[in-house]
This record gives sequence, structure tokens and C-alpha cells, in this order.
Amino acid sequence: MKTITSPEEVDSLSGKMDALVKEDRKKGAKMRQVSIPSIQPHEVLIEVKAASICGTDLHIYQWDEWASKRVHPPYIFGHEMSGVVVEVGEKVTNVGEGDQVSCETHIVCGECSACLRGEFHICYRTEIIGVDRDGCFAEYVAMPAQNVWKNHNKLPFEVATLMEPMGNAVHAVLAGPIVGKQVAVVGCGPIGLMAIAVAKAAGALQIIALDLNPYRLRLAERMGATEFIRSDREDPILRVEEITKGKGIDVVLEMSGHPVAVEQAFAICANGGRISLLGLPARPVSLNVTDDLIFKGVTVYGITGRKMFQTWEQTAGLLESGRVDVSPLITHRFPLSDFEKGFALMQEGRCGKVVFCMNG
Amino acid sequence: MKTITSPEEVDSLSGKMDALVKEDRKKGAKMRQVSIPSIQPHEVLIEVKAASICGTDLHIYQWDEWASKRVHPPYIFGHEMSGVVVEVGEKVTNVGEGDQVSCETHIVCGECSACLRGEFHICYRTEIIGVDRDGCFAEYVAMPAQNVWKNHNKLPFEVATLMEPMGNAVHAVLAGPIVGKQVAVVGCGPIGLMAIAVAKAAGALQIIALDLNPYRLRLAERMGATEFIRSDREDPILRVEEITKGKGIDVVLEMSGHPVAVEQAFAICANGGRISLLGLPARPVSLNVTDDLIFKGVTVYGITGRKMFQTWEQTAGLLESGRVDVSPLITHRFPLSDFEKGFALMQEGRCGKVVFCMNG
Amino acid sequence: MKTITSPEEVDSLSGKMDALVKEDRKKGAKMRQVSIPSIQPHEVLIEVKAASICGTDLHIYQWDEWASKRVHPPYIFGHEMSGVVVEVGEKVTNVGEGDQVSCETHIVCGECSACLRGEFHICYRTEIIGVDRDGCFAEYVAMPAQNVWKNHNKLPFEVATLMEPMGNAVHAVLAGPIVGKQVAVVGCGPIGLMAIAVAKAAGALQIIALDLNPYRLRLAERMGATEFIRSDREDPILRVEEITKGKGIDVVLEMSGHPVAVEQAFAICANGGRISLLGLPARPVSLNVTDDLIFKGVTVYGITGRKMFQTWEQTAGLLESGRVDVSPLITHRFPLSDFEKGFALMQEGRCGKVVFCMNG
Amino acid sequence: MKTITSPEEVDSLSGKMDALVKEDRKKGAKMRQVSIPSIQPHEVLIEVKAASICGTDLHIYQWDEWASKRVHPPYIFGHEMSGVVVEVGEKVTNVGEGDQVSCETHIVCGECSACLRGEFHICYRTEIIGVDRDGCFAEYVAMPAQNVWKNHNKLPFEVATLMEPMGNAVHAVLAGPIVGKQVAVVGCGPIGLMAIAVAKAAGALQIIALDLNPYRLRLAERMGATEFIRSDREDPILRVEEITKGKGIDVVLEMSGHPVAVEQAFAICANGGRISLLGLPARPVSLNVTDDLIFKGVTVYGITGRKMFQTWEQTAGLLESGRVDVSPLITHRFPLSDFEKGFALMQEGRCGKVVFCMNG
Repeated sequence: MKTITSPEEVDSLSGKMDALVKEDRKKGAKMRQVSIPSIQPHEVLIEVKAASICGTDLHIYQWDEWASKRVHPPYIFGHEMSGVVVEVGEKVTNVGEGDQVSCETHIVCGECSACLRGEFHICYRTEIIGVDRDGCFAEYVAMPAQNVWKNHNKLPFEVATLMEPMGNAVHAVLAGPIVGKQVAVVGCGPIGLMAIAVAKAAGALQIIALDLNPYRLRLAERMGATEFIRSDREDPILRVEEITKGKGIDVVLEMSGHPVAVEQAFAICANGGRISLLGLPARPVSLNVTDDLIFKGVTVYGITGRKMFQTWEQTAGLLESGRVDVSPLITHRFPLSDFEKGFALMQEGRCGKVVFCMNG
Repeated sequence: MKTITSPEEVDSLSGKMDALVKEDRKKGAKMRQVSIPSIQPHEVLIEVKAASICGTDLHIYQWDEWASKRVHPPYIFGHEMSGVVVEVGEKVTNVGEGDQVSCETHIVCGECSACLRGEFHICYRTEIIGVDRDGCFAEYVAMPAQNVWKNHNKLPFEVATLMEPMGNAVHAVLAGPIVGKQVAVVGCGPIGLMAIAVAKAAGALQIIALDLNPYRLRLAERMGATEFIRSDREDPILRVEEITKGKGIDVVLEMSGHPVAVEQAFAICANGGRISLLGLPARPVSLNVTDDLIFKGVTVYGITGRKMFQTWEQTAGLLESGRVDVSPLITHRFPLSDFEKGFALMQEGRCGKVVFCMNG
Repeated sequence: MKTITSPEEVDSLSGKMDALVKEDRKKGAKMRQVSIPSIQPHEVLIEVKAASICGTDLHIYQWDEWASKRVHPPYIFGHEMSGVVVEVGEKVTNVGEGDQVSCETHIVCGECSACLRGEFHICYRTEIIGVDRDGCFAEYVAMPAQNVWKNHNKLPFEVATLMEPMGNAVHAVLAGPIVGKQVAVVGCGPIGLMAIAVAKAAGALQIIALDLNPYRLRLAERMGATEFIRSDREDPILRVEEITKGKGIDVVLEMSGHPVAVEQAFAICANGGRISLLGLPARPVSLNVTDDLIFKGVTVYGITGRKMFQTWEQTAGLLESGRVDVSPLITHRFPLSDFEKGFALMQEGRCGKVVFCMNG
Repeated sequence: MKTITSPEEVDSLSGKMDALVKEDRKKGAKMRQVSIPSIQPHEVLIEVKAASICGTDLHIYQWDEWASKRVHPPYIFGHEMSGVVVEVGEKVTNVGEGDQVSCETHIVCGECSACLRGEFHICYRTEIIGVDRDGCFAEYVAMPAQNVWKNHNKLPFEVATLMEPMGNAVHAVLAGPIVGKQVAVVGCGPIGLMAIAVAKAAGALQIIALDLNPYRLRLAERMGATEFIRSDREDPILRVEEITKGKGIDVVLEMSGHPVAVEQAFAICANGGRISLLGLPARPVSLNVTDDLIFKGVTVYGITGRKMFQTWEQTAGLLESGRVDVSPLITHRFPLSDFEKGFALMQEGRCGKVVFCMNG
């Protein structure tokens, strides 16, 4: 764990920056002046241009049970970001000063059995930026060079910061075939909404959006969903049966993490269908394994992180070619100093992505 | 549902055969003389040489809740079999009189969305031999020609009758990569035991057998398992952690259907591992989806039936090449008339496969 | 081989239809009145609404060397079609009178090793409609029911007739991953042009069209290609090197069948890239196997026909969702009686697809 | 290119070792005393215990056209090896002193598009040990830590040195399904012979060995081949037709690199079969693309190197479980000083693998 020095100490140093520091083991965070991080031989220093709030950041901000067990204040949080490389370590060869970049937030060991098979995203010793070490809610961030993804100069920073969560969506959608398929997105938070756009861009026949929240279902329509189910007002299982004429859904993308929704995700899946599970249930889920999984010959994929870096190549391709436009999702932009507004919006849930725009 | 004519009627007919008839909606079955079935243009008539008892047959025999809902006496049950074709319908071209055969027990529609994708084993309108129509606990059985698999003449009938359940094992083992992998077989009933032999023949590094029953664990050793866990005497999760040095199991084959075992199957799976679920839990299973499925990036396959006919090609290849020897599993052989002994053994669980040997 | 009765005979019969008959073993074809075909129990009779000319039909029309060896006049040719079912055989259950349909042109045996693996498109005993038996350049055609694909009523007949060749394109494009990839289409005939649209709809990053013919490259642009190489005016290998910064093409779709182009297809492929070979070279192709295939770790797919019926599901999905619009390709429409104009256009090459519109 | 200092210089240094140096641009090599290499922070120093001669080494020894273009004397050659780690660089964490190891010979960049997709074996900037930098025909070799594969202590060094070429065989065999398949190995040099053993261990139905050399066909039998074709005495295409009853071979492993054999490899392949091309033809190969690749729907894999490190995991698994025994292939063992005998045997071709045993 590489934490910042305490605010008192950094005042006496020369190279300083503003950063949003999770200082105390309670709700909230504080803007502080801290030292600009120094970099190791295999690291780069990035001037952050845009950073976005993830659900994980909200957990940390609000200091819930998960956060109190997982993170160790004081430290800088935040992990979704884009920026410009301003300094490169002496051993770095893959990226140079002036490059516009996004960052993979999983720092992996390269040595465990998963890494040796090239499955870096499920490394046994993953360290996460903004969780296990200082993150990007700051003017600068130090990053291992191998975690940096170079973008085209034309990609706006506020879009580039969304590549990390969009990568989750891409990973979930492309875990199996998608062309010509009936797709359901269960839970239309930001990653669900991006999954809708990705499924459309990748050739899905029909995209059914499920959520309780009409605001989100309207965003789902903007992203390309073709059918809409308000799960609190109608029975998703009956509606899907109707839409698919009893066949069920070919590709179910579970993005909510709600145990009841996870059960429904299995119930609506077609024979031979596939389910990508991405939303994280906080408690055990009860499944009808016999009828909903075995007899239907369903395949289930646990989706975490982004394949490094196949998912990044796919995500970049979808954005650069214009096949996916995530800009409708960016509903709010603030300077980092207005962080309280951003977190308040996130808590209310009446927003798409909230982006902090920094460094001009 | 093509059921037999009532025993009274058949007595007056010429072509008759002995059959084990599930006559009443209660425990038991009766040997009866019934008409030899006549065949349709796309069917063949098979003289049954060997038939084996499956767990499903035991349910029907004992008349449990599942059976009372699913099957409609009077009819002939039994579905695992081998024999010789003695008559072919006028439209049949794939098989001829004298051919030695085994039979796929799923009769499929060929028209539903699953069939159109070539996933016949999960046909929406599957009809099962010995469940939905007359089966093979008889001297003769009528079978759609497309359900017949031709065997080499050298394959013993008592082995050929095991190709159907062995196909389940092959389907589960070969749902993903197996060479050089650490494999766990959770539940060492006949299909689990065959899965051990298949995993060995397909290049697994290590095969860990889990069961409560020492008799079965001894059979597991004969089939090629290398490590043994008595789940009632030691904690499977701790033992697997020890054996795999904390990595977990690459390929978990869940063959028990016991809810607690299913939970354990998920708990012992490695990051990036895969789980084939074949055993059918009778009640919902509670799973830690977040830790045991998503964060580990696990893939789960619901396994039912046999891929038609890729699984049969694989199964036949493993038997013909001698890479798998299932004969240690055949612990008991009876004439059909001794059916009560066979079902009694099955109920006690102190047996491998019980085979009825027929027609000389 | 089920051929028509001779024109003299049919004059005396009641149920007659107009048909384009390949009558003699020489260039040309003749409009004749022939009997409306009668159907078998597993067949349907289709009133043809649209039929399109394939390169194969041109070979037959012109009576080249291939045709003289392969087909046996007199018979009705033509295999790309759409229409309405007007009669169903007594054993037919998957389709009914009034259904709007397209047809898979490969009639397969269902019994060979390829069919048993579900790879019907490479059946060892394939019989092709319009080549091995009477085809669709006629008012009516008899078709095995299992070859019929039901369309939505909204799909125009002139689009539905293109599903068969579009299926070839879909098969080639979706033989492997496509999202975010750099794609090259070598040869922009109708199937190449459809491949461009499919690659775009399936999420390709960039689509490079290669052809000698500027007319076709203009169509390529309409279908969604992003870069254009006139292979006669510039070196495709150098241009691709430039476009891909030395990396090469991720997905090469060889649609020309020209031996030089096939060589180039291998030369421009990236390390780890894939090549779908669909165009049929008339003579052996000389390949630098060591450098262009082995050291680059390339995967090559021989593409023939359409996966039955996964490819049809994908093709239908792309059309129904509006993701692919093939209408720009339909450059000419004629009544069947103007067949000479159609074949003349095909020979000149200044056309997209030529469609015969029939039966009102 | 990190070459050794000249022999004159090293005489004056303290830490010295014996090494087989390719000193001049002509046939032959010389035993020299040279400095023990010093290691970088991410490297380890390995005491070589066994090293084996590869065909590539023979090219370099004999100084053929390929060698004269590719390598830059003076340097130490050799790349197949096993040994014990005796020193680790300060940044090394994956391996420690005393570990018994084999080595992946491809040093990769980690930054190119292939590496970013995890396809390290086709890195655009691969550097090869013993070709592009000093190799292992020496008492010690310096190796990047990420190229080191740790072995179980029980694995004999003379077996462990074969893991690198066996990895090529494993890569070729496991490029697709193998269980229950008819397999042909075209060319029974050491890698072909290991492919036979791997195919058997992975569940192949039947393994047909093709070669001109009866010595090699006898070794093929020892490794598990079930049918044998002397390609100079009988027509391989006719014989395969006979053996497979006209179906052709499911899995063709081309290990010879001879252009005529490559053509035959395509000709004998079944519909839907796959061909792994590993042998390197020295000149272009003429292929009947239409009949032998497209109409049969064949898939072709260019095989180079070993997947890092999935192939190593599989190879280790096959050896550790005892499923593959490569010891019959080790026909000759020499001290390094007898290198001339080893290379002479390789040139005559009357050997399996020739192993240099070193450091006691």
C-alpha cells in the first residue's frame, strides 16, 4: 500500500497538487494539497484531465461496511480517468510524454497461474488503483506503464475516462456470440447502459432493458434498447415470455447485482443461452439450478474487470469507429472541488456518469 | 405419448415379447407379455441385448414425487440400452438389419430455435425414451432411426449400453479444456466415476474424487482418481486449498446434485476455472455469486444430455481406442426377470452399474 | 437427379408454369412452359416471388468448363430465392401455407460424419438446388421443408432472396472475432459488398475494400467501407502496411477467388490474424506458408455455404434489426422473361445484384 | 544483440565457463572458455544441466543459407535446456535460487498488438535465445526471469530440456478438439513423435504416422501411433482414404515442412477437419484451395512457438501426470565436449533427440 504522506508534511514540499483525500474512517472526503507523486522506473506520471465517479467510489465516500473493511485512509481515491503523460520512468518504452491515455485499474502480478495463462484480469494478487493505492481524484497520478492505454488524440478526455467502465460492459457483452441475438440488460446503471450501446454496435437483434427506474429506462432508449420492462410494475418473466414467444433470452447481461434480479436473469434465459454476471450481489443468491441452468444448457460467465488488453482493443475500436457513442451518458460535469455535488447526485441516482474535469 | 396396449389385449396377439411394465401409479413394476412394437417408416426395431438401470429408472420404480408428475403408466420404462437392429422402416437409410447399436434417448423436434442452431440436446420439445414413450426394459424396442448410433461389432453389449450415461460424463468433462488441468469430481456415482476415466483419458493432470461413500471412492481409484476426499470426514474446501496450494480447482465436475455439494463446487473452483453442473438438485441452491463466481471469473456450464452427435463420436472414440475402460463399473448383471434384485441394489447404493442382459 | 419432364410432354398437362430451362449443353437458356412440380411428404411448394442471379448461374448460362462437367440439362436452374408457401406435404410441421420464406440451397443427408457433428454445410453428400436438381428460376419450386427459412412478413421479397448469398458473407465475417478489428475485404463482388455491411454492423473498427473495379469500390463505400485500394493501381501490400502501421490486417475476407489476390490476402494478414477464404480459385494457389501463415500464427477458415441454421439466424437478425441494409446492392430488377438482359449485365460486371421479380 | 566478449578477452577474467561458440561464418563451432554471463535486475543465472540439439542448431552449425542471414557470430548457440537457478536479479520474484527450470526461448516485448492480446508467441519483436542472443550450449546462461518455467524437482533434467520442443507439439495438437478424432502426423521427426504421444494422451481415437524413414516409423510406434504410412512406398492419399473409409483425417499435424507433404496434408483432411502447420517449408507451397480447403470447410492453424504460458502448463501437466513419456525419444547423450558426434548424428538423421548432459 503506497499512501500519501500526511497533509501536514506535504505543505513543506515544493511540487504540490490538489487531491481528493479520503482522510478519515467516516463519511466524506477532503480536498487537500499533497505532493505530486514521484515515479518508479517502470511507471509514468499522468496529468489527469478527466475522472469519473464509479459506484465503488460512492461506497468509499459514504464509508459503508465494505469500504471500512477494504480501504485504509488516508489516501487518494478514484480510478476512472484519462489524461496526458507528463513524465516517464527510465525503463518505460511503451508510452511517451504527451501521449493521451486511459488507465487499466488492475495492477497484476504477472506470475500467478491466472497471469501465466494470460488471464490477467483475474490475477490472484490484483492491486486496484484508488482502492489499494492512491488513485486519480487528483491533478496527477503515478501509474505502472503497463497499465496505460494510449488513445487517439481526437478522443475527448471525458469520453476516455469512461473506457474503464465501458470495458466492463464490453467484456460482458462479448463473452459469447451476439450477432442476431435477443439480448436483455438487467439493470440500467451506467455499465448496463453502455452494454446496451455495445450490444447494438455488435449486431444484436433486439435489446430489452429492465430496470425499476424510469429515468434510466429513458437513457436506455437513447443508448439503443428496443424493449423496456419496468420490473416493479410488470412481471419480467411473463413479459419476456411474451416478447420471445416462449423461447427466452439468448444473451442475458446481469448488471444490477440485486439477488431478485439475478434469479430473474436465470429464469428468462433461453435454452442454450448465456448469462454474463457483472453486478455484485451483497448476499447469497438462491438459484433453481436444475430448471434454470442445467435443463436449459445455459452457460454462465462471471465477469470482472477487463481482459488485458483484448477488451481495451475492442472498446477503443468501438469508440474510434463511432459505433458506440457514450456521450449521452455524461449527464454532469464538475471541477474536482465540487465533489460534494457529484457524490450527492450519485447517491440520489438521478444521473448517468458524473465526470470531474481537471487541468483545463 | 405412444403407450403399449393393455396386457389383456396383447395376449391375443401373435408377436409378443417380455417387458418390464410400469403398470400402476405406485412403487414397483411387473414383467408382462406385450406386443412387439411395430415401426414407422423412419423407425427401426431393435432386439435389446443389454439395458442398464439409471437413477431416473429408480425414481420411476419407487414412484417418487417427480415420477408421479412426469410419467403416465402403464408403459415400458428404461432408456440405457444396446442391441441389434432386426427391422428397418422403409425410409431408413442410415442403419441396416444386423447392425449393433446404442441409442440416444432424446427424441428431438428438429424445428425449434435450439435444434436450428444444432443444439439438439436442449430441444424445446424433447421426448425421452422410457419416460415419455415406451423404453427398453423389454426384448424389443422401436426407435427413430436418427436416434441410433452404430457401434463396432467388437464392442460388448454390456459396455455399449453404458454409452448413453457415459456420454453425459463426456459432455461434462469436454465442455472446456482439460489437458494438464487439476480436476475435481464432486459425487462419484456412475456418471461421476465415468467422468474420472474420461478426464484421465483426455489428459488431466490430477483428478480429485469427492464423495461420502468409501465404496464409491474405492471405485474412483480404480477409474483413475489420484486424490480422495471424504466430504463427511474432512472439509473439502480446506483439503482442496491444501492440494492446490490455494489456487483452487481448474475443472469442477458437479455430479452429486446435492445443494451443499453444489455450493462447495463453486467454493473450490480456481480463478478462471470452469464448473460443469450435471447433478440435479431437488431444491434451490444458495450461491455466493460475488466471491465464488464473479470475482473468480468462473464459467459455469449446465450439462444435460449429449451433444448430438459430437458427444457420441467422442464417447465411441474413447471406448474403441481403449483409452476408457468402463468394465470395472459393471458390478452386477441380471436377466430382466431379476429386476427386483437390481432395483434393490440401486436403492442401497452398494453397486456400480446394474446391467440387464437379454436375448442371449 | 429430379429433372423436369421434357417441354413437349408438359404441354398436355393442366398445372403449368413458366420456367427458365437450361435445355442444351451450350450457352443460353430458354423460357418454357413446364409442369408445376409435385411435392413429397416432407416437401413444400413455393410460389417464387423473387430470385437473384449468382455467379454460379452465370457459369451455367454461359456453359463454361465447370458447368459442362457439373450440371445435366435439361433442368431449371437458379437457387437464390424468396417466395410464399402454397402447399405443404403431409409430414411437414415447421412451415405452413402463406408463410413467406427464403431457402437454404444445400440439401444434406443428415447421416454422414459431418452432419452427425452438426456441420451440415459440409455434408459429404450435399445436393444443391438449381445445380443438382430443379431450381427457382420458375414460378414455383418444390423444396424440402427442412430447407425453408421463415421470414417476417415485413421483409421485402427482393431482400429475402439475398439472404442466401448474404449468409455466405455472414459465415465468412463471423468465423471469428470482429469487434474493434481492422478488416480487409479482398474482392468487392456482391458477397464481398455484403461482407462489408456485415462487418460494419458487427462492430469492425475499419473496413478496407480491395478491388480492381472502381464501380465496385463506389458500392463498397455505400456499404460502409472506410478505406479503398485499387489493386491494379497501387500495391495492396504496401498500402496495407501504411494503413495498419506495419501491423497488418486482423480479419482478411478473401472474396475474389483470384490466385494473386489470395496470395495477397495472406501477405497482408497480421500476426494472430484470421483469413476467411470464400472466393473459389480456378487453379492452385502458391503460398508462402512459412512467413505468411506459420510465423504469423494465422488461422485460415475455408468458408462454404451457411451454417444450418446458425448463419440464417444471424442473417435474419441483421436484416430484421435494420443493422444491415442490402438494398443499395440491388441495382437491377427484371421480370424473368428478360433474363437475357440480366445475364448480359452480370457478364459485363456493371451491376450489383440482378433480381428477377415474379408472381406480382 | 548481446554477444559474448571475444575468447581472447575472457581468458583474463576470473568467472569462466565452457561454452560451444559459433565463432566463424562457416561450418562448425568451437568449445571455448568464456566469461560466465552477468545478469540484469530482471534476469536469472542458470546452471545448465541438460541441453538438446534442435534442427535450428543444426542449420547454424552447418552454416546454411538461412543461418548466414539470421545469426551473427561470434556467439553461443543452443536454446533447448534445463538447469538450476544459481543467481537471481534484484527485481526477480517469480523464481529463486535452487529452483529447477526449463526455459521459454522467445523473449517478447509485451507492448506490441499481439502481446497486448496475450498472444506473446507471435510478438512482433520476438528475440530468440541461441539465435538472437547467447544461448544454452554452455555451463551457464543468463535468462529473463519471465522466460523461466519452474519444474517439479522429480522431473529429470534430460526430460525437462525437451519441454520446449514438446511445447511445439502440444501447441499443434491442442489447437482444436482431439478426443475421439482420427489424427495424422505428417513427418515423424522429434516434434512429430512427441505430437503422437500428446495426441494419444489427449484422447485421440487413432494416430496415423507418415514418414519416408522406417527408423522414425518404428519410433512412431513406440510413441503410440496406430497406423503407419511410408509415403515413398505407398500413396498416402489412397491409404488414408482406405483407413478412413473415404472420410479423411479429422486432425492433420504437418510436421515435415516438405512442400509435397504439405499438399498431401491438405488432400487427406476430412470435411470440417483441422490442419496444424508446424514444419517450415523452405519454398512456396502450391495448394488446391478450392477443393482441399474451401469446399471441405477446413480450418488451418499456423503454429509457431508455445502459448505463453498455457502451452507450458499443458506440457508440464502431461509430463508430471505420466500421461506422456518422452524418454524413448532420447536416443543419445553426450558431454558438451562431444558436440561433433551429436551434430553428426543429427545430420545423418538416425537419432531421436541428442542431449548434452552438463554440470554433473
